[in-house]
Amino acid sequence: MKARAPGSSANLGPGFDVLAVALGTYVEVEVSRSPRLEVLSTGEGADLPADESHLAAQVAIKVAGTDHLKIRVHSEIPIGRGLGSSAALAVAAAAAAGAANPLEWGVYVDGHPENAAASCFGGLIAAALIDGQAAWRRLSLDPALCFVAVIPDRPLLTSDARGALAETVSRSDAVFNLGRMGLLLAGLADHRQLTAAAGDDRLHQSARSELFPEAPEMLAGLRKAGALTSFWSGAGTTLIGVCRSVDADTVRSRGESLMTDLDVPGRCVTLKADLLGMTLASDTKQMIKGEWQA
Amino acid sequence: MKARAPGSSANLGPGFDVLAVALGTYVEVEVSRSPRLEVLSTGEGADLPADESHLAAQVAIKVAGTDHLKIRVHSEIPIGRGLGSSAALAVAAAAAAGAANPLEWGVYVDGHPENAAASCFGGLIAAALIDGQAAWRRLSLDPALCFVAVIPDRPLLTSDARGALAETVSRSDAVFNLGRMGLLLAGLADHRQLTAAAGDDRLHQSARSELFPEAPEMLAGLRKAGALTSFWSGAGTTLIGVCRSVDADTVRSRGESLMTDLDVPGRCVTLKADLLGMTLASDTKQMIKGEWQA
Repeated sequence: MKARAPGSSANLGPGFDVLAVALGTYVEVEVSRSPRLEVLSTGEGADLPADESHLAAQVAIKVAGTDHLKIRVHSEIPIGRGLGSSAALAVAAAAAAGAANPLEWGVYVDGHPENAAASCFGGLIAAALIDGQAAWRRLSLDPALCFVAVIPDRPLLTSDARGALAETVSRSDAVFNLGRMGLLLAGLADHRQLTAAAGDDRLHQSARSELFPEAPEMLAGLRKAGALTSFWSGAGTTLIGVCRSVDADTVRSRGESLMTDLDVPGRCVTLKADLLGMTLASDTKQMIKGEWQA
Repeated sequence: MKARAPGSSANLGPGFDVLAVALGTYVEVEVSRSPRLEVLSTGEGADLPADESHLAAQVAIKVAGTDHLKIRVHSEIPIGRGLGSSAALAVAAAAAAGAANPLEWGVYVDGHPENAAASCFGGLIAAALIDGQAAWRRLSLDPALCFVAVIPDRPLLTSDARGALAETVSRSDAVFNLGRMGLLLAGLADHRQLTAAAGDDRLHQSARSELFPEAPEMLAGLRKAGALTSFWSGAGTTLIGVCRSVDADTVRSRGESLMTDLDVPGRCVTLKADLLGMTLASDTKQMIKGEWQA
């Protein structure tokens, strides 16, 4: 079986560990029987060890209950940049290996469900664990919006990014994020309602900026260039400018010049939201929506 | 001038100090010139002193710049029960006295904008202060939903209810509320998506339950009776069961029996959301939408 899943951007500023949007950059995983384990990886992550330590192999072996598998992986999703590569790879590997509920494998890998739910179901997602089970809902997303991703070459380990966070926060900071998230969801549903401050956050971005000191200036620069709002993508290092499609070239161009000016090598790409989520194909069928999609 | 504003229910569980829904229970305020201050109050709050200490008088005098006013107030909104009576009264008094921006008077009285924005503009609102200015957005609300309000006779001062809250919270509790709020907004937009846990909260309800120990059992009872979810209304003591209109009678009846069983005297009413917000009339005009409504 072969599965294709989109990457995603989580948090979207105030929606820490809750919101994610699926983005039009993909990983494909094909799993078939084989006399011995074979892992073939191309594209992003092709430099990782192609053995049983590969995340796709770990997931597929557990799902299939055997390591007699040939696993092909081709990814466009940059690794360690906060674009949900591990969740997308996990759900695609699980689906390609025949898992009944690929979502839970993504949640298992990440520890929280928003990236995995976005990769499985597409669109704008709010997700939470309720009694240990992933609950997710689609939220309205204005099709006029697109996402300029400023992707530095330097990665940031999610574990390091998470380690920078405080265990307690002030009640006023918690309320700050709730308020911005409410305004953000109204603005993502109708871009005419999207105000820049709706992307602001007090729970994770400033602490993580110690690991990426250029981030605040770059986020402000994207807004000045026409992004309706901006925020970190997941645990970084990618930064996102949300803009109207007509403004995307201007915002992307400004993202490139910010990278040059601040000596942060990398690339900028404009991504549309993916609304389809994971698709699945067997040898004899076209890519189809997976049966797990209600 | 005469203004009519709906009451509102704030917080809606996880959306502490951020979400509010305007409800079909109203206060009317009429302000006219008079040789001396006269305050005439009927309905809810008619027992409060009818002098310059009355909230409607305080607001109207400041707006008009004189106390040579006759102020008539008629309210259906119970006072001190978490149904936004002070915000509704403040915006209506300000509008009736000719204020250009009645919203800011409601924010001034409450210290936060969600009740006042709901009273001014109706519907489901997310609101926050951004650089000291109230920002608010309408969010989608399924017309199939209604709100059963269990209104105990005993009031709870907002100042006491707020004093019970901790100044710091765990990051995981902050994330808990963000996640539930995301699920809640999806469910309020489409009741078929509304899951009971979406109304849960970790920032204020449990601390406030020390002041109203029967609340958790009543909230659970409303859900068991058919409410899709349930939560405190503002700082209480009112509790809300959100339900489909077809289930409202059953839920309200259960609310009444819970009050009897737990010896919490009061009443239960079924309220629809108010979608119109504040309306304004002069002597020569019918009730019209205020000019401040963009």
